[in-house]
Amino acid sequence: MPRPSVKEEIVQAAVRVLHQRGFNATGVQDITDAAGVPKGSFYNHFESKEVLGAEALERYWQGALTSLEMLKDDNVPPMARLQSYFRKLSDVGRKTKYRPGCFVGNLSTEMSDQSPLIRERLASILAQWTREIGECVKLAQNDGSLRRDIQAKAIAAFMLNSWEGAVLRAKVDRSGLPFDQFEHLVFTALKTGS
Amino acid sequence: MPRPSVKEEIVQAAVRVLHQRGFNATGVQDITDAAGVPKGSFYNHFESKEVLGAEALERYWQGALTSLEMLKDDNVPPMARLQSYFRKLSDVGRKTKYRPGCFVGNLSTEMSDQSPLIRERLASILAQWTREIGECVKLAQNDGSLRRDIQAKAIAAFMLNSWEGAVLRAKVDRSGLPFDQFEHLVFTALKTGS
Repeated sequence: MPRPSVKEEIVQAAVRVLHQRGFNATGVQDITDAAGVPKGSFYNHFESKEVLGAEALERYWQGALTSLEMLKDDNVPPMARLQSYFRKLSDVGRKTKYRPGCFVGNLSTEMSDQSPLIRERLASILAQWTREIGECVKLAQNDGSLRRDIQAKAIAAFMLNSWEGAVLRAKVDRSGLPFDQFEHLVFTALKTGS
Repeated sequence: MPRPSVKEEIVQAAVRVLHQRGFNATGVQDITDAAGVPKGSFYNHFESKEVLGAEALERYWQGALTSLEMLKDDNVPPMARLQSYFRKLSDVGRKTKYRPGCFVGNLSTEMSDQSPLIRERLASILAQWTREIGECVKLAQNDGSLRRDIQAKAIAAFMLNSWEGAVLRAKVDRSGLPFDQFEHLVFTALKTGS
């Protein structure tokens, strides 16, 4: 297998390091060190740490899209798909001891008011994420398992935002309880006949 | 009125600046500049930026406790107190155009995995915040306006975490829609007979 290009090594290292430590706590040299490339090579490939940050975010999101495929699995009832999806995200949290949290959520609070470039990327990712969840919410409303008196889009946005809030709390408490509470509350309160 | 002490001026400036820009994007000099005091005076009063960060967080929280008093107002039904409380928090978001977000939430994602000191303070603040909301949730369950099939403590934690998630999303989207969705979903889905 050919060695990945220097640019690619920098992007991969940036996803890891920026997710773990945050954007402003990380210097360009921390990233090139993690990538095992000379610091001088950085500016051959990226105009700024901000530009790399946006690219690392995009790369992280492309990885996250794989899990979203679960929401389209016609062999599983839509409500069960939603539950399995969020349970899968919880499992990722558990495996990392809740410490890094969600890279999208971390950048949302840290960078939205600092970088228009990163904020725009975040807005578009959160919008796409909401749409994908919303499609599955709509199916669950159609088959009668999820309450229909609230718009699918609002339910999807609320689910996602509440999920990000649960990740934030899990990160502070180093506990999976916020995930359990999320699952219990969301799925108890939104299912029909509850 | 006597001029506040240098230490006090630094703490007040730190609350503003750290809330707006974040912890790692802010240098000690940014804080002393904002306070209008010489940079050299900083280490006479604080061991480190981290120690000041924890103190600024505590100061912010002391201010936030005033709004929590609403939840104890016996002249208002408990369910209405909860709604007014979160609406009041939304109003603060609207006034600041959703840009700074919540200082507690910002530090939660940025600093929980970086500073044990700040993480412990955050955990204790979020625990107290949950308890205060939980007391009012319990009253609303007792008077029959809020569903009783889920523990008050779990509802309170879910409300607070979901609120922090809504603030995060509002910060990215620069929109109050996440607050409206939070209010609609939480209070529709949790009220009895819904």
